[in-house]
Amino acid sequence: MKLNETIKSILERKSVRRYTDEPVGEETLSTLVEAARWAPSGLNNQPWRFVTIESREKLDEVAGFTKYAKILNNSTAAIGVFLDTSTIYHREKDIQSIGAAIENILIAAEALGVGACWLGEILNRREEVEKALEVAPTLELMAVIALGHPPETDEGSNAARKGRLPSETLIVGKF
Amino acid sequence: MKLNETIKSILERKSVRRYTDEPVGEETLSTLVEAARWAPSGLNNQPWRFVTIESREKLDEVAGFTKYAKILNNSTAAIGVFLDTSTIYHREKDIQSIGAAIENILIAAEALGVGACWLGEILNRREEVEKALEVAPTLELMAVIALGHPPETDEGSNAARKGRLPSETLIVGKF
Repeated sequence: MKLNETIKSILERKSVRRYTDEPVGEETLSTLVEAARWAPSGLNNQPWRFVTIESREKLDEVAGFTKYAKILNNSTAAIGVFLDTSTIYHREKDIQSIGAAIENILIAAEALGVGACWLGEILNRREEVEKALEVAPTLELMAVIALGHPPETDEGSNAARKGRLPSETLIVGKF
Repeated sequence: MKLNETIKSILERKSVRRYTDEPVGEETLSTLVEAARWAPSGLNNQPWRFVTIESREKLDEVAGFTKYAKILNNSTAAIGVFLDTSTIYHREKDIQSIGAAIENILIAAEALGVGACWLGEILNRREEVEKALEVAPTLELMAVIALGHPPETDEGSNAARKGRLPSETLIVGKF
């Protein structure tokens, strides 16, 4: 396998679920959105929209809509990721692009030493989150990414880097 | 904005549509699949499966299923990306994860100096591609990624790094 800094960031990215009190900071948040902004999308339609959250009160309000509340209660920032259904051209391809934008945020966070956790279960209460974040009616919640500085040890951060299926299982054909 | 090698790879990634004759090579292809393998997915269900293609004959056969045939006719390798519908837990979240895995391949390719182009239009003839790549009936084509070494100039590679909407448009709320 070929290794370099970028590939290390991709391979070492993991979910971080506990954070220190140190703020993520405006510059880092902007960089994460910038990374998302350069994701690819079909016909370059850029279906993603973002809400950044640093307010303790708002983080705790949004936490109330997921059974993984503790992660957001503990995080110092978050990014709400939305699909703009008014710019949609092919729903499934647009949702793939949203996934690409989310992954850019997660890899960029890893590269900056910021802990991140992709929250999907919160979609069960999508409409309440959309209301709390005061987005336009055409915006549909796709994910919330919790952010914060990781504690010094992985144990402290409750970081899980789960295993993966072997390549032999994932590569189902070679021509 | 904060910059480092990983963030540069994310920001500089672009679609490369013409390639030299130099093979991508087994080691690079393995690294790209390895990058995809470490993408995040809900409940770690890893819904992605891959078919790697280096055979000239197979690349040209698959090219026949897209109006962007020239890209695959010119590429020296490709990766077919599939959703394993037998492992699905939430179709839209799984498709986001597929997008994350695709983005890992694209960023890793950029970091290794390999040109890549995400082909989505080919989904219009999904079933024919699935048949050509001889995948199991539970596998559903999500994308084909064309790969090859880029010519020395961007003009030669027909690389397009399209513009993006300004952050002010994409960030629809701050709390």
